[in-house]
Amino acid sequence: MNEPGLDEIREAHEKQKPYLHRTPVLTCEALNRLCGLEIYFKCENFQKAGAFKIRGALNAVLNVSDEQAARGVTTHSSGNHAAALTLAAKWRGIKAYVVMPENAPEVKKAAVAGYGAEIIFCQPTLKAREETSAGVIEKTGAAFIHPYNNLDMITGHGTAALELCEEVPDLDAVMAPVGGGGLLSGTALAVAGISSNTRVYAAEPEKADDAYRSLKAGRIIPSENPDTIADGLLTSLGSLTFPIIQKYVSGILTVSEEAIIQAMRLIWERMKIVVEPSAAVPLAALLTKGHPLEGQRVGIILSGGNVDLGNLPWNF
Amino acid sequence: MNEPGLDEIREAHEKQKPYLHRTPVLTCEALNRLCGLEIYFKCENFQKAGAFKIRGALNAVLNVSDEQAARGVTTHSSGNHAAALTLAAKWRGIKAYVVMPENAPEVKKAAVAGYGAEIIFCQPTLKAREETSAGVIEKTGAAFIHPYNNLDMITGHGTAALELCEEVPDLDAVMAPVGGGGLLSGTALAVAGISSNTRVYAAEPEKADDAYRSLKAGRIIPSENPDTIADGLLTSLGSLTFPIIQKYVSGILTVSEEAIIQAMRLIWERMKIVVEPSAAVPLAALLTKGHPLEGQRVGIILSGGNVDLGNLPWNF
Repeated sequence: MNEPGLDEIREAHEKQKPYLHRTPVLTCEALNRLCGLEIYFKCENFQKAGAFKIRGALNAVLNVSDEQAARGVTTHSSGNHAAALTLAAKWRGIKAYVVMPENAPEVKKAAVAGYGAEIIFCQPTLKAREETSAGVIEKTGAAFIHPYNNLDMITGHGTAALELCEEVPDLDAVMAPVGGGGLLSGTALAVAGISSNTRVYAAEPEKADDAYRSLKAGRIIPSENPDTIADGLLTSLGSLTFPIIQKYVSGILTVSEEAIIQAMRLIWERMKIVVEPSAAVPLAALLTKGHPLEGQRVGIILSGGNVDLGNLPWNF
Repeated sequence: MNEPGLDEIREAHEKQKPYLHRTPVLTCEALNRLCGLEIYFKCENFQKAGAFKIRGALNAVLNVSDEQAARGVTTHSSGNHAAALTLAAKWRGIKAYVVMPENAPEVKKAAVAGYGAEIIFCQPTLKAREETSAGVIEKTGAAFIHPYNNLDMITGHGTAALELCEEVPDLDAVMAPVGGGGLLSGTALAVAGISSNTRVYAAEPEKADDAYRSLKAGRIIPSENPDTIADGLLTSLGSLTFPIIQKYVSGILTVSEEAIIQAMRLIWERMKIVVEPSAAVPLAALLTKGHPLEGQRVGIILSGGNVDLGNLPWNF
C-alpha cells in the first residue's frame, strides 16, 4: 500500500481551507482535575456538517476526476459520512446518492436530505447496504466513496490532528475513537509525521471492541452484532485502515457504556458543548482507572456533535 | 443616582481580567439564514461558573472593603448569582453565605455547594428569602450583594457587551434577556458608551413580562406569579436597573414559551453549544415575526449554560 504521509495530509489541508472551519481547541479545568491530566479537545463537533467526516469526504470528492464527477458520487452510511459526502458534492456542484438504513437517526436523515442528497433507503444490514449500493452504482455510474476504507478519506481526516499538533505542540499523546478506523488512521499518520514524541491511542466501546481484538489477533476480526450507544463506531476495520493502525497506534483502550454516557454528560455539563456519544469515548477511557496516560498532556479529537436531542441517554 | 459610565466598566474589566475568560463570539450561518439577519453570539455560557453573573459578582466582591470582607458576603438567589458570588468570594478568600429556595434546580445547588458556600435553604417565596437573608446578615455581619439591584453588579455585567462591541464594531443592535435587569442595564450602559449607532433591545418571556409592562407604564410593575421555563428571568426590575433601562433601551420584545424552547433547541442543534432557556430568549424574539431588527447586524448576549440535563424541555 502507498501509505499517505504528512505531505499528502498538508496538501489535503490546503484544499480544505476555503470550505472548512479551523475548529477550536478547548480545555476544561474541571475535567483536567477530574482526570488528573491535561486534555486538549479538538472540537470537530463545531466542524461543517457537525463532524470530522467532512474533512475526508471533501478531500475524496475534490480528488474525483471531472469525467467521473459528472456522474456523481455515492456511498452507504448511517449518518455523518452521508451528510458530509452530500455537502462536499454540493460544494463541487455534483450529485450525491446516499444509501441509508431505514432506522438511521431522524436528525441524520434530515441533515442528509437537507444538503440535497438523493436518499435510497435499505434494510439495516451490511448485506442490504452493499447490494443496494451496487445497484445504485450500476444504474448511475457514480463514484463510490467508502466511509473509511479509502486513502483520500484517511488523508483528509488527518488534518484534524495536524491542526491540533500545530496548535498544541509537545502533546504526549493524541486519542481518537475507532470504528472503521478512518479517523484513527488519518490521525496516526498525521501525528507520526509531525511529532515523533507523541503517541497515538484509540478508544473503543467494550460492546464494539473489534479493533481491540483485531490488533491483538494481528488480523481483522469483524464486528459482530455491536451494540453500543456510540453509533458512529459500529463498523469494522478495513484493509487500508488496519495496517496503518497496526503500525502507528500504541494501544486501544476499551470502555463501558456507562463510562461513555458519563463522559458525554460531563462534556455537556462542564464544557457547555454538544458532542455525540462516539466523541465522548476517549474521555471515557481517561475517566476509567488503569489507563496508561496518567499525568500526561493528551489531545482528544472530539469527533462530532450530531445527536438526537429528543433521545438522550440520560433521560429514561 | 450616580450612573456608571464606560470608564467604570473599563475599570471593572481590568480587575476581572486575571480571573475570567474572554468568551468567544460565535456566528452560525444556519441561524442567520433562518432569521434573515446577522447574529453575533457572545458566549457567556462558556464563562466561569457557566454564566455572565460572575462578571458582576466578582466586581462587587472585589469592591467590598477589607474590613467588611472579613465578615464575608451573602445573597439570596436561586442559581447563577449564588454560584458566581461564591466563586468570587473563594477567589478573594472570604466566606459566602447563600440563601436558596429549597426547590432550586439540583445542578445549581450542587454548583453552589461545590464552590464552597454555606447554604441556608428557605421556602420558595420572596418573603421567605428576604427574611432568611436578613437573619443571616444579622448573625454574620456579611455584606449583602443583591443579585442585580447593585451598581457594582451592573457595572461588572457591562463588560460582556464591552468585549462584544470591541470585537464586532458596527453592530446595529445588541440584545440581552431581562429579568431583574442587571445584565440589561450593564449592557445598555456599555453600548451607550462605546457605540452611539448601536441600539439595545431586551427580550423577555410573555409569561414574565413585567419589564415590558413597566417600561410601558413608566413605573416598576412587579412580576406576579411568573411562570416561564426561563428560570433566570423570574425577578422584577429594581430601583437602580429600571431608570437605566428606561433611558437607554429601545424596546422589549416578548416571546412565547414555545419560541424559547424552539430557540434553545436550535442553538444546541445548530451551534452544538449548551445554553440555558433564559439565554435563548433573544434568539426566540428574532425567530418571532414582526420584530424590528430584520436584516440587521445584531449581537446577542448568550447569558448562561447552566441547565439540568436530566430535565430538558423537549423531553416529555
